[in-house]
Amino acid sequence: MSSAHLTFDSTSDKIATRVRKMRSSAVRDLFAAATRDDIISLAGGMPDVRLLPEEAVCKAAEAACGAARSEALQYGGTNGREATRRVFCGLMRDIGVRCRPDEVLITTGAQEALDLIAKTFIDPGDIIITEGPTYLGALQAFSAYEPDIHCIPFDEEGMRMDLLEEELERLGVGAVKFLYTIPNFQNPGGVTMSSARRTRLIELADRYDVMVVEDDPYGRLRYNGGHMIPLKVLSSDVIYLGTISKVFAPGLRTGWIAAPKDVLARINLVKQGTDLCGSSFDQVVVEHYFTDTPWERTLQTFVRTYAERRDAMLAALDEFFPPEASWTHPDGGFFVWVTLPEYVDVTSMLATALEAGVIYTPGNGFFPDGVRGRNSMRIAFCYENPEAIREAIRRLAVVIEERLQLYRAFLEAGAL
Amino acid sequence: MSSAHLTFDSTSDKIATRVRKMRSSAVRDLFAAATRDDIISLAGGMPDVRLLPEEAVCKAAEAACGAARSEALQYGGTNGREATRRVFCGLMRDIGVRCRPDEVLITTGAQEALDLIAKTFIDPGDIIITEGPTYLGALQAFSAYEPDIHCIPFDEEGMRMDLLEEELERLGVGAVKFLYTIPNFQNPGGVTMSSARRTRLIELADRYDVMVVEDDPYGRLRYNGGHMIPLKVLSSDVIYLGTISKVFAPGLRTGWIAAPKDVLARINLVKQGTDLCGSSFDQVVVEHYFTDTPWERTLQTFVRTYAERRDAMLAALDEFFPPEASWTHPDGGFFVWVTLPEYVDVTSMLATALEAGVIYTPGNGFFPDGVRGRNSMRIAFCYENPEAIREAIRRLAVVIEERLQLYRAFLEAGAL
Repeated sequence: MSSAHLTFDSTSDKIATRVRKMRSSAVRDLFAAATRDDIISLAGGMPDVRLLPEEAVCKAAEAACGAARSEALQYGGTNGREATRRVFCGLMRDIGVRCRPDEVLITTGAQEALDLIAKTFIDPGDIIITEGPTYLGALQAFSAYEPDIHCIPFDEEGMRMDLLEEELERLGVGAVKFLYTIPNFQNPGGVTMSSARRTRLIELADRYDVMVVEDDPYGRLRYNGGHMIPLKVLSSDVIYLGTISKVFAPGLRTGWIAAPKDVLARINLVKQGTDLCGSSFDQVVVEHYFTDTPWERTLQTFVRTYAERRDAMLAALDEFFPPEASWTHPDGGFFVWVTLPEYVDVTSMLATALEAGVIYTPGNGFFPDGVRGRNSMRIAFCYENPEAIREAIRRLAVVIEERLQLYRAFLEAGAL
Repeated sequence: MSSAHLTFDSTSDKIATRVRKMRSSAVRDLFAAATRDDIISLAGGMPDVRLLPEEAVCKAAEAACGAARSEALQYGGTNGREATRRVFCGLMRDIGVRCRPDEVLITTGAQEALDLIAKTFIDPGDIIITEGPTYLGALQAFSAYEPDIHCIPFDEEGMRMDLLEEELERLGVGAVKFLYTIPNFQNPGGVTMSSARRTRLIELADRYDVMVVEDDPYGRLRYNGGHMIPLKVLSSDVIYLGTISKVFAPGLRTGWIAAPKDVLARINLVKQGTDLCGSSFDQVVVEHYFTDTPWERTLQTFVRTYAERRDAMLAALDEFFPPEASWTHPDGGFFVWVTLPEYVDVTSMLATALEAGVIYTPGNGFFPDGVRGRNSMRIAFCYENPEAIREAIRRLAVVIEERLQLYRAFLEAGAL
């Protein structure tokens, strides 16, 4: 959409205040320009849908154009198809969450869930808490409703509960609308919240009267370590967000919200005006994928493949990255979070990296102010094969090394 | 969602101001309760997807699970697939609108288009203009952003331009954010804006600096009379909303916005946070439906079938309805708008109608205040066969006649 900068913008005086603050991400524009074949991308968060067997997809699609056709082609209820919601209850049951279909509402991907929750709960100026850094799309969804977003840092055990408690105490009981967290293999951090911190989070939320929104897109993609109990199991008040994007296919835009019925009733009202209902067609396809195909075997293929890629990335980081860099060691999911010395600006480094044939996502996009995280980057291991990942990390290390040498020279000269 | 009234509503103090004003429609709740098999519904606006040939649907779905699989299952761009946008440019070209694919953005049904436009342009208190009555879903979409909605009545030639001019003159240049209109076979009115009024509308919009949003879900469903030039042809500044819901299938939730590029760039930014992108899978299916199947022949079947149903409804209204009732005579689309004497409250009449085995949509839902239109109703001829429509109108006439007799008796007794 870079052409917008060139076109005479005749309607700029009509834009709503909430939109004036939104910026097209410079990174997005850069990526759009990056069409060279030899560029290896560590930037996106795309699951590798090439791993899905054609047979399974066709089998799932068959129902939508066959027996279930008249329903698949028609408007559906705002909450989504009951049969599909039942499938999602089954997926949640596997991880210990007990929900009934009337406690589930289907959304157009988990992204819509974030928008609906924000639209339902956020008044301008309301305080919400997220991890910092956190999912870029959550920041975009929330920001449209003009909240004041407070970030709590994480370490290798997830969100820092000591800092959360300090912040909640400072703000006071009832001062925070909700807390948004990605406890498993966080995006962009790759870190997982420990059991002890999960329990603590629920205690704090209860004490300070904070709703908890648990976003769990990657939970089923664990490569080592044992299953962690979802926050939703610790408290049924938690608003849990699920999606099939990473265990099946994001192209079908099917996610869900599991929440207490009174919360869902509000969100349903909001969804009516937002898009009326989700795609019945996609819901039928999803429903049959999880009932008529060996999806658990396919999931194992996903897990095995991503685990190899993660291993390749961590090994390459060890091999090539300079001692000044540090990074997280994810047990699952798609992402590693790399921190460089404070004087490195990874956004300005991106053009050089692009020339060197590798791209990543600069860290500042994962903070609401767009300023913090300028010396960090998110690198994804989900889409490229192990060899390409190793080569990408090697290229990236060269670019970083150049920067570091420059700064080391400045440092030695006493100029910084 | 009626259970919400029974559950202890623990989060009601957390709800955003914009949602506090939203109400679950009493009518919707009533319809949910209406599960008796012998009830004939004139309430919904569901296209009759049973008319779609299985072969065509399967043919269209084949591409999504076959050759185009890896794209159909993956995230897509926020604007939507270029190939699909090109198909929509072709559909618009058929009705005289010339657009390039980069002037089109694909939405999750036209309902999402309404939300995105509202989210992009409406600040609380902004004035927007619609026909009164107008599409219920547009009122829901707009209301979430708290505008001040002014309604302009229509007659058999569409929105009254004399009243529009009066209103714009009263409010002044630049005072109105946008004007929303359904010029063809309006929902719920069934009326079509005449050519002279279309030209006049564009003149007035230009003079008073008002953006125009043209919603055209029914344009291809014309049963008599000649094609009317879209507003978008008269001014390229118009924001045109299209959808495949009525010419193919609403279950695929695929609509589009055709607008100047600077407007689309803003809407794209807003859509990123709302749902990231539409269903690639559905877009592939839609794309192939309009390129690989004899869709124009199927459209002719739709037109022929709906025309018969409209004729059946108009004939039954002539045969059964009392002289105190008046109604519109649509040249296309799905709906007839019936006006009863002012003393008849069609909402309170609905329970009696339900008992008599017929339901309709009370008119007050189509006004932003929920008060006007209480003596009107929208009746749809799109879904039931001619015999059922005739029977429904007969039943409805009996219910109305009872009300009228009651009121006539009161009138005679001088009690009103």
